Amino acid sequence: MKKLVLTGAAGRLGSYLREPLSRMSDELVSSDIAEDLGQLYPGERYQKADIAQYDQMFDLLDGADVVVHFGALVDEVPFEEMLGPNFLGAYNVWEAAYQRGLKRVVYASSIHAVGMYLRSDFIGTDAPHRPDTFYGLAKCFAEDLGRMYWEKRQLEAVCLRILSCARVTNTRALGTWLSYDDLIQLVTRAVDTPTTGFSIVYGVSNNDRAPVDNSKASFLGYRPKDNAEQFAERILKQAQPADIKGLSDTRHGGPFAAVDLGESCMIQMNIVDDKKEN
Amino acid sequence: MKKLVLTGAAGRLGSYLREPLSRMSDELVSSDIAEDLGQLYPGERYQKADIAQYDQMFDLLDGADVVVHFGALVDEVPFEEMLGPNFLGAYNVWEAAYQRGLKRVVYASSIHAVGMYLRSDFIGTDAPHRPDTFYGLAKCFAEDLGRMYWEKRQLEAVCLRILSCARVTNTRALGTWLSYDDLIQLVTRAVDTPTTGFSIVYGVSNNDRAPVDNSKASFLGYRPKDNAEQFAERILKQAQPADIKGLSDTRHGGPFAAVDLGESCMIQMNIVDDKKEN
Amino acid sequence: MKKLVLTGAAGRLGSYLREPLSRMSDELVSSDIAEDLGQLYPGERYQKADIAQYDQMFDLLDGADVVVHFGALVDEVPFEEMLGPNFLGAYNVWEAAYQRGLKRVVYASSIHAVGMYLRSDFIGTDAPHRPDTFYGLAKCFAEDLGRMYWEKRQLEAVCLRILSCARVTNTRALGTWLSYDDLIQLVTRAVDTPTTGFSIVYGVSNNDRAPVDNSKASFLGYRPKDNAEQFAERILKQAQPADIKGLSDTRHGGPFAAVDLGESCMIQMNIVDDKKEN
Amino acid sequence: MKKLVLTGAAGRLGSYLREPLSRMSDELVSSDIAEDLGQLYPGERYQKADIAQYDQMFDLLDGADVVVHFGALVDEVPFEEMLGPNFLGAYNVWEAAYQRGLKRVVYASSIHAVGMYLRSDFIGTDAPHRPDTFYGLAKCFAEDLGRMYWEKRQLEAVCLRILSCARVTNTRALGTWLSYDDLIQLVTRAVDTPTTGFSIVYGVSNNDRAPVDNSKASFLGYRPKDNAEQFAERILKQAQPADIKGLSDTRHGGPFAAVDLGESCMIQMNIVDDKKEN
Amino acid sequence: MKKLVLTGAAGRLGSYLREPLSRMSDELVSSDIAEDLGQLYPGERYQKADIAQYDQMFDLLDGADVVVHFGALVDEVPFEEMLGPNFLGAYNVWEAAYQRGLKRVVYASSIHAVGMYLRSDFIGTDAPHRPDTFYGLAKCFAEDLGRMYWEKRQLEAVCLRILSCARVTNTRALGTWLSYDDLIQLVTRAVDTPTTGFSIVYGVSNNDRAPVDNSKASFLGYRPKDNAEQFAERILKQAQPADIKGLSDTRHGGPFAAVDLGESCMIQMNIVDDKKEN
Amino acid sequence: MKKLVLTGAAGRLGSYLREPLSRMSDELVSSDIAEDLGQLYPGERYQKADIAQYDQMFDLLDGADVVVHFGALVDEVPFEEMLGPNFLGAYNVWEAAYQRGLKRVVYASSIHAVGMYLRSDFIGTDAPHRPDTFYGLAKCFAEDLGRMYWEKRQLEAVCLRILSCARVTNTRALGTWLSYDDLIQLVTRAVDTPTTGFSIVYGVSNNDRAPVDNSKASFLGYRPKDNAEQFAERILKQAQPADIKGLSDTRHGGPFAAVDLGESCMIQMNIVDDKKEN
Repeated sequence: MKKLVLTGAAGRLGSYLREPLSRMSDELVSSDIAEDLGQLYPGERYQKADIAQYDQMFDLLDGADVVVHFGALVDEVPFEEMLGPNFLGAYNVWEAAYQRGLKRVVYASSIHAVGMYLRSDFIGTDAPHRPDTFYGLAKCFAEDLGRMYWEKRQLEAVCLRILSCARVTNTRALGTWLSYDDLIQLVTRAVDTPTTGFSIVYGVSNNDRAPVDNSKASFLGYRPKDNAEQFAERILKQAQPADIKGLSDTRHGGPFAAVDLGESCMIQMNIVDDKKEN
Repeated sequence: MKKLVLTGAAGRLGSYLREPLSRMSDELVSSDIAEDLGQLYPGERYQKADIAQYDQMFDLLDGADVVVHFGALVDEVPFEEMLGPNFLGAYNVWEAAYQRGLKRVVYASSIHAVGMYLRSDFIGTDAPHRPDTFYGLAKCFAEDLGRMYWEKRQLEAVCLRILSCARVTNTRALGTWLSYDDLIQLVTRAVDTPTTGFSIVYGVSNNDRAPVDNSKASFLGYRPKDNAEQFAERILKQAQPADIKGLSDTRHGGPFAAVDLGESCMIQMNIVDDKKEN
Repeated sequence: MKKLVLTGAAGRLGSYLREPLSRMSDELVSSDIAEDLGQLYPGERYQKADIAQYDQMFDLLDGADVVVHFGALVDEVPFEEMLGPNFLGAYNVWEAAYQRGLKRVVYASSIHAVGMYLRSDFIGTDAPHRPDTFYGLAKCFAEDLGRMYWEKRQLEAVCLRILSCARVTNTRALGTWLSYDDLIQLVTRAVDTPTTGFSIVYGVSNNDRAPVDNSKASFLGYRPKDNAEQFAERILKQAQPADIKGLSDTRHGGPFAAVDLGESCMIQMNIVDDKKEN
Repeated sequence: MKKLVLTGAAGRLGSYLREPLSRMSDELVSSDIAEDLGQLYPGERYQKADIAQYDQMFDLLDGADVVVHFGALVDEVPFEEMLGPNFLGAYNVWEAAYQRGLKRVVYASSIHAVGMYLRSDFIGTDAPHRPDTFYGLAKCFAEDLGRMYWEKRQLEAVCLRILSCARVTNTRALGTWLSYDDLIQLVTRAVDTPTTGFSIVYGVSNNDRAPVDNSKASFLGYRPKDNAEQFAERILKQAQPADIKGLSDTRHGGPFAAVDLGESCMIQMNIVDDKKEN
Repeated sequence: MKKLVLTGAAGRLGSYLREPLSRMSDELVSSDIAEDLGQLYPGERYQKADIAQYDQMFDLLDGADVVVHFGALVDEVPFEEMLGPNFLGAYNVWEAAYQRGLKRVVYASSIHAVGMYLRSDFIGTDAPHRPDTFYGLAKCFAEDLGRMYWEKRQLEAVCLRILSCARVTNTRALGTWLSYDDLIQLVTRAVDTPTTGFSIVYGVSNNDRAPVDNSKASFLGYRPKDNAEQFAERILKQAQPADIKGLSDTRHGGPFAAVDLGESCMIQMNIVDDKKEN
Repeated sequence: MKKLVLTGAAGRLGSYLREPLSRMSDELVSSDIAEDLGQLYPGERYQKADIAQYDQMFDLLDGADVVVHFGALVDEVPFEEMLGPNFLGAYNVWEAAYQRGLKRVVYASSIHAVGMYLRSDFIGTDAPHRPDTFYGLAKCFAEDLGRMYWEKRQLEAVCLRILSCARVTNTRALGTWLSYDDLIQLVTRAVDTPTTGFSIVYGVSNNDRAPVDNSKASFLGYRPKDNAEQFAERILKQAQPADIKGLSDTRHGGPFAAVDLGESCMIQMNIVDDKKEN
């Protein structure tokens, strides 16, 4: 592969992907709205660009083979704020990718596209959308857009529905945890699988309590290695009693399923940068 | 019912709905971006409003029980043009309906939300989205939004996936035709059914060749009466040879499934106002 | 057919079945816990018997070909009261039928065996049980028992899951109504179909708004003729606003889905003998 | 349509198709192994040909648009006898149709391709094969071949799984009857539908007791008009007691499901030419 | 957890659960109809009680959080004998649990609730009931009851459909074995998972030949460790020829599927206490 | 087991099976059309026989318990050439096995029976046939025949749908590889499982990228050990760019899905004898 592009490279997840992606290609162009990323990896170049601006995406993707699109607002916010980065951002990336002749978009989708399903529904990758927030609705939009660009324009896409890629701090995460190593494997497979068409795969580790079904994406070869059960004893001991009928404790989306539309949820999720902790 | 609101009242389909809706409620407020509608029906009032403007929707829905949302661009256009009326328009109507305390949104969705399925797939109302155009993608967006407003905010919605509500002029329409009388029954049921939650129903007449499955929406009681088979002999005799592998002749979306994204399709569809013809 | 037996012959539904069943067989033995039924039909004989007493069932079924088992408490009551007539009664009828060598049991089951499903779920006859009351739980018990007697002992059974066989007095009944004529057709088919194995079929008329799916029972040839839509305009006009999230207005079981376990529900249902009214 | 070809034109079903097919095309070439057909219809020509001989099929299909392939042995016989007309015959017709550039094969398949399913299974057109005889196995072979010629070579096919196109003389036929008028409608739709790809449809009338599910073939517009229930009272009165566990009375294939492989079944089926009787 | 209650504590399986359950809670109350259990574990208390007596269950569950209900007759017996311990016992436990405000019932269900399915059907936890005995019918009753108490009264339940928790002595057990360690894990997960709603999970080890599908219960995190394949060579060598059409060798229920209703099956199953043997 | 018969013993796969099969039975009769096999294993005997000749199969199977039928042409060839060995050969083996009273046929079927499915369809063992070649069509024929012999004549069968049992030389094989050790386990389970009825199982190793679903065959206990991911880095590095819309790169059948019917495909597949290489 000659050229890979990564959006959202300054974000928490993006920062873990820069090094492995730089090794998969002759050139990695990392991009974000930050001024710079500090130290770069061999073969990596930084290009500041705003995903909400089509022209900047069109420039960014020049000559690329695959774009790994992780740039987005990563919390629930009012629809008007979500519109630019998460809705238009997705359109801009796919349209520019098509105009530039890329082969594939690898997209950071989310469990929140289907977050209103009961956690005891072992949902597969073909369950109809049931978003839990505007954040999730933007993921639905991008997935539907991606499928259409594949069916109408032969631009491949792999949508990674990430569950919880963060330190395990609550009982829900015993099922939803995606370790950073497994994230890297997931993105690697999404890039290196020879043909993918339009595919959806859940981003979750090999947790005993993993609540979703990746079997339809089996051909991608994503086989996670980590297991949150190592944290179970500690987490269960500290856990508050569950609200057995509450949305937060019974739906795949967790706190996002319970939050009011447009209100921030991340503080509640207790997501921290834990590169050195887990 | 005290107050109904109809958007898109000046449009082709909206114009057929004004009279029956005016009889279902104490007051019908018809709305569009036109200056006026000419002669009004008893109980009908006209209020000019742009669906792409949230404030105007918020004003329009004051005191309403149900909004019948038919306002939209009804052809394929570039994404940037679609964004205001079809994407933001849907958000504005649902958000205003929620803020104003309405009970339900009745929405003119479309077969183009699932237009890339093979015509020989007898798709039901729970088939995952496969849009064929930006036009269809906007319908996917609105349906997902509507489901979320129901699940998070208890605002009901009935999405009418209309197939072809127009004069029967080609072989595809032998299956996809929705007569105006059946359209009226469909909207009537969507309004008068006591509880609907979030529901999807295909808008198609009782055609011998109807290619979609409404059984999951059976409780709504939509039972169409008309049948396009009355036109079959004439239409089949005039028909050009089909392209048996082409998208237009094999997918539910018809010409929309074959058109380039962003390019107009309606001329090709030969849709005309045929109030007096069929 | 030489001998048919009907239990619950003095009940509201049973009383409608006596005449047609008497014409389908050389001898009809009608049974109940009443002292007598008054005037009998040609070929009909009355035998008082308590379904909760095995010996009386064993006597009753002597020489019979088929038993039509409609005897039961038909309201929600505490479990201890339900036990005798509805649980033991079912066991007694099936066990006696087996010991007496009958060919088939035709059983008055109920929608309340699956009453907790959403009304907008178009449930089929193979949906797993979700009872809404002890009344419904007894129907689940009898259906499972009946399937076992078929699979282990080659005693056929047809379970008629009746929805609402009563005057149409509320919006739910626009979907759930079973007319008396259609009840008779239903029982007739359950008796005259040459082989049935173990089968379940919903007892509902050909209502526009019928919310259940009988397609798997198609071979039985039950094709109802009546349609509650004739009452729709009147009923909808009088209807109270629905509780769009309440169990009573959103589940198949209606008021049974909302009632406390063990508390009477029939008064609320407003079921009356309406032989001459509808 | 310029030229249609009918094989098996001298057979019982073929003889009913000659007249309507002759009216659908400029030229109908009827074919069989008989010396002649007697009186021909306007536009009809007879060409003697053996389906088991590829060269004769290649000659026959010269210039044709569609072939309606009804030629076959229509009883259970040993495999060696079935091989020529029913296996090789199907291959010869499809291969010649491809080599001659035809658009479509309309094929007389049979319920016996799936005859081992329980009659109470409401099987659809996508149920995996479960043949009941070598006769049924040949139908499975031809259907799989036809699907492959569509997927590899863009030759369309419609497989008509006929249930019982004959006089109603037994209880099974109350469900399985296909009237001659409905047969003609079925073949007409299979010929005139503009695009069919590879499709399967059950050939059965609109019987109350029809035991199979044609919904997936809905787009073909086959809507039968006749109903065997008109014969029910007479047939049920004369019927012998069913064998409730026997293959013949419980499987879709009826007597074919019970017969020893390779042994004739037609006499048992009591199939007669009843052009003037039903 | 403050207080756990175990019924059937003197039984074969119950005796394995006392120690691990005593470590999961401040207090374990073990109960049975035996006079005493001998030596108790730290934190364990014994309370004699008869599950067939509601008052005794009501006393027993005072102050408990969760009841692990393993008390039952564990063989096929006539219905009248099964009624008290297995049917009324289940009702008594659930009703008392509800009246006492418990959070959850963990219930020893059984494969015999679905024992009539073909062993080659890889049945999931949502397969409709097909009991093979009165023993299995009682499990069906309790599962349906448990679902209802969840849906109507918010009392959670986890039903453990145990296959064969006993020494591996026959070829069926190569698939159905549940080791004692895996039983303990299974019960532990059923108790410690924060929210379960109403759930069903098969109790079977990680056998190569395991014939059932637990994927829908994935969120519970039950991941068995043992594998009966270690016994395969020895068992297969000693095995009698199978009866390839017999119920015992082809159905999930094994000998229970073949036994006459009401007749003991356990001797035939060769179930022994094997604490020290496997 | 007293006597096993292996057809195709001189073939590439057959040659790997001789030694393990010889150890599973008192006598192994290996058969092929070669003159001899060279050195035989203890308990092995060679009998030259042509599968296309019924009499030779009838002789061969005298006194056998199970036949492992691997004899066939293993490339795409014109239908006329396929007919004898692959179609008639299958019939001859099953018919002779029935006439000789064998218990079971173990059959080398192939992914090419369903080779036209999209590789991203995680097809199970109950997916309807979609053959990609005459070679695959013969597998469909044999599977349907085998199911019929089970349902009509109680002759068991296990059909092994082998994906790619050969050296891993291309990206497709990263998903489709079946190692020789896993082949042996697969055949062993197919022979030693006590009852199988008619079963289908995919022959594929435990590859990360395995694209098919064996869960329905779980009871057979086939649990492969090898994983082609060991070859992934090397293979992916050397790979040519994929044709993302081409049949060869997107369908389960690989090159067979793209080849013209009747044209050889094996050279393209680069299948070599690699006993000592992988």
